[in-house]
Amino acid sequence: MPFPISAERVSVMINANRLLKHLQELSQIGRNALTGGINRFSFTPEEQQAIELVTSYMEEAGMTITVDAVGNVIGTYGEGSETVMLGSHIDTVPEGGKYDGALGVLAAIEVVQTIHEQQLSLSKKIEVVAFKDEEGTRFGFGLIGSRAMAGLLTYEHLQKTDASGISIGEAMKQSQISPVLLEKIKRNDIQAYLEMHVEQGRVLENEELPVGIVTGIAAPLWLEVTVTGVSEHAGATPMPIRKDALAAASEMILAIEQMLNDRTDSVTTVGKLIVEPNGVNVIPGRVTFTIDIRDIDEQIISTLESSILRQMQKIAERRKVTLKTKMMQRVKPTKTDPMLQQQLANSIEKQGVRPYSLISGAGHDAMNIAAVAPIGMLFVRSKDGISHNPLEFSSDEDIMIATNIFYDTVAGLTK
Amino acid sequence: MPFPISAERVSVMINANRLLKHLQELSQIGRNALTGGINRFSFTPEEQQAIELVTSYMEEAGMTITVDAVGNVIGTYGEGSETVMLGSHIDTVPEGGKYDGALGVLAAIEVVQTIHEQQLSLSKKIEVVAFKDEEGTRFGFGLIGSRAMAGLLTYEHLQKTDASGISIGEAMKQSQISPVLLEKIKRNDIQAYLEMHVEQGRVLENEELPVGIVTGIAAPLWLEVTVTGVSEHAGATPMPIRKDALAAASEMILAIEQMLNDRTDSVTTVGKLIVEPNGVNVIPGRVTFTIDIRDIDEQIISTLESSILRQMQKIAERRKVTLKTKMMQRVKPTKTDPMLQQQLANSIEKQGVRPYSLISGAGHDAMNIAAVAPIGMLFVRSKDGISHNPLEFSSDEDIMIATNIFYDTVAGLTK
Repeated sequence: MPFPISAERVSVMINANRLLKHLQELSQIGRNALTGGINRFSFTPEEQQAIELVTSYMEEAGMTITVDAVGNVIGTYGEGSETVMLGSHIDTVPEGGKYDGALGVLAAIEVVQTIHEQQLSLSKKIEVVAFKDEEGTRFGFGLIGSRAMAGLLTYEHLQKTDASGISIGEAMKQSQISPVLLEKIKRNDIQAYLEMHVEQGRVLENEELPVGIVTGIAAPLWLEVTVTGVSEHAGATPMPIRKDALAAASEMILAIEQMLNDRTDSVTTVGKLIVEPNGVNVIPGRVTFTIDIRDIDEQIISTLESSILRQMQKIAERRKVTLKTKMMQRVKPTKTDPMLQQQLANSIEKQGVRPYSLISGAGHDAMNIAAVAPIGMLFVRSKDGISHNPLEFSSDEDIMIATNIFYDTVAGLTK
Repeated sequence: MPFPISAERVSVMINANRLLKHLQELSQIGRNALTGGINRFSFTPEEQQAIELVTSYMEEAGMTITVDAVGNVIGTYGEGSETVMLGSHIDTVPEGGKYDGALGVLAAIEVVQTIHEQQLSLSKKIEVVAFKDEEGTRFGFGLIGSRAMAGLLTYEHLQKTDASGISIGEAMKQSQISPVLLEKIKRNDIQAYLEMHVEQGRVLENEELPVGIVTGIAAPLWLEVTVTGVSEHAGATPMPIRKDALAAASEMILAIEQMLNDRTDSVTTVGKLIVEPNGVNVIPGRVTFTIDIRDIDEQIISTLESSILRQMQKIAERRKVTLKTKMMQRVKPTKTDPMLQQQLANSIEKQGVRPYSLISGAGHDAMNIAAVAPIGMLFVRSKDGISHNPLEFSSDEDIMIATNIFYDTVAGLTK
C-alpha cells in the first residue's frame, strides 16, 4: 500500500512507507489476536523476537550491533569519539499499544537509514538504543536499561523478582546476559540524547499540532492528607454546628484546583479519596485523600506544596477540623536541554509547523540519561490522549512529519 | 444517695430520686458488664425482664396493666372516655445507652405517680405505653408497636425475619402474644400523645438549655448522584482540558452546603462518596455520592431538592461532566401539634427555662401516632450529642427539670 500523503508543502526526506511497515511488523510480535493488545515483557521469547527484528532493521540501516551488559540493544552508525544517541524502548505494558516506545526506536532507525542513503558525512557517530525494560511490567521496576546507562542501576535492584519469583539478575543470566559489571555500562561519552515518543496526553490534539517540544519531564510529589471532623447523625446535627470532614475536603480540593488556574505546566490531582464511615445518613468524620503535584521545576513544586498546605490549614482552622499531611514520595523532575529544544524548534519550523513546547507528565528513558548527557524529546500527537491500551493511535501523517523533523535535527547535530 | 440538686428556683413536684433509681435499675437489664452497653431486643428474655420491672413501676404508680395484641405494654391511670397517652420504648440498639426510650417511659410513669400522690382529680384518663420494638434491632424493622397502634402495621410486615430466620409473627407467638387482629390494635381515642426523649444531637447543648420543644420529625429524601468525567493520566493532562469528576463533585458538595447556610431546620448531608478508579496518579473518572435532605416540611424538602438538582446541573454543564441522579427513598416528615407545643412552652417557662424549639432528626414512635392523634415531644439535652452508645448521657438535673415540665403539661392537659 503506497503512503497516501502528498508531501507538497515540505520536503520529506525520510521513507515514511518503510517506517510504517516496520511499525506494523513490530506490532505483530506479542500481539493478542483477540484484543489487539501487545504483550512484550523483558527477557521473554516475544522480546527476543522483537530484538531480532529491530536488529535486522538496524543492520539494513548500516549500523553495527552491540548488546551491553544489561541487555540494551545498541546500533552504531559512523565513527568518532563523540556520540549522538537516539533511543526509546520496545517492551510494552500488558495489552499495550503499538506506538509507545516502538515508534521512538523505529523512527531513530529510519533517521539513520535516511542519513545512510543520503550518504551524509558525519562528524559524530550515532547510536540507536532499544533500552531494556522501560515499562517495568515484569518486575514492577522499570527503566532498567536507561538506569544502567546512567550509572543508576545497583546490584540490589537486580534482586527484584517477577510474579514467579525470578529475579532480574536471574532472568538476565537465562537470556545469556551477565550483568557482571554494572559500572561498565555507564556512559560518559554522550554529547546529546534525543528521544521521539508519543505524547500519551491530549495537549497536542487540543492545540491541533502534530508534534511538540518537551521542556522537561515532570516528577510527582505525592502527599496524603487526612481531614478529621466529627461523625454525627445527619438528622440530629444542624448545619452550623457540624464538623463535616467531606465538606472540608471538598473545599480543599477546589482550592487546590483553583490555585493552578493561572499555571500552564504544573498539574495537581486529587485522585484517591476515602470517606469514613461512608454512610448515607452519617456526617463524614474522616476523609483521607492524596495530592499529586507535578512540574518540571523542583522549586515550583515546593512553592505549590507550601501554598497548598497553607491554604488547607486555613480551611481546616475555619471549619474546626484537624488536618494531617504525610509525604508519600518526592521524585526529582528533569529539564531538557535548552539548546536541543531550540534545534528541535528550528526543524519544526522548517516543516511549516508552529513550534510548541509542553511538558511530559509520564516518565521516559530520557529522564535517566539526563544524568549523563543533555537530553531532548520530541512528542507526537496521540489520539484522545489514549495510551497503554490497544486503542493507542498516532496518525501516519503525524508520524511522517515527526520523523522528518527528527531527521533534520539529528542531521544538524551530527553534521 | 440523695438527689444533689437544690430546687430553690422552681417548685419540683416529681420525685427525681425515685425516677433516677428506676432509670438505674432498668439500665442493669441486658447490660454488657464489659462495655456498659445495653442489649434489649424484642421478644427476648431481657426484654421480658424489662417489661416486668416497668409494669411493677406502673402498678406502684396506681396504674392497671394491659398488653395489646402486638405486645405494647399499657399502664392506664384514671377513667374517662378521653385519653392522654404518654409513651416511648424500652428496647435498645445493640450496645445502646440507658436513656434512649427508657427515659421517656420511666418519666411518664413518674409523672403519673406524682399525679397519683398529689391525688389530682383528672377529667381524662392517662395511658403510659412502652411501645414494642422501636429500634428495629432484631428484625431490621422498627417502630412495630406504634405502627400497630396507628393502624400502619400489616400482616406482611409480620413476615420479616431476624438473623436466625424467625419472623416477627413467630416471635410473637413464642412470647404468648397472638397478633390475630392487627386492626383491633389501632386506636382512635387518643386526644393527645406526648413523648419525652433524649435529643441525640448537640443543639440543646449548644444553646445551653436542658430541654427543647420538638416542632416536627424530619424525614429524609435520599438521592444518589453519579458524576462522570474522563479518567486520564494525572501527569499528561493539563488542568484546562481535564474533566475531573471529583473536582466537579467537590464543587457540588460545597454548593449544597452553602445553599443551607441561611436555614435553621433543614439539613443536607453528603455522607457517602466513592471515587473511581481511585488511583493517586489518575484523574477521577467517576464519583458517586449520596445526598440526605431533611426537613419537617415536605414542601421545603421539594424546593431544596429542585434547587440542588438545578445547581448541580449548572456545575456539570460548566465542567462538561455528565450528571445522573436517582431517588433512593422519600419518607414523609411529621409536624407536632402547635397547641401541644404551646403547652410545653408554658410549662418550660414556669420552670424558668427559655422555651426553645427544634426539630427531631431521628425517627420516634410519636411519628406513627401522629396518624391518629395530635402529638407533642419534649427533648432532653444529650451530652456531646452521643446516642446509640454506652456513652449516651443526660444529666440528673436536666432529667429532673424535663420530667417536672412534662408533669406540668400532663397535669394541665388532664385537669
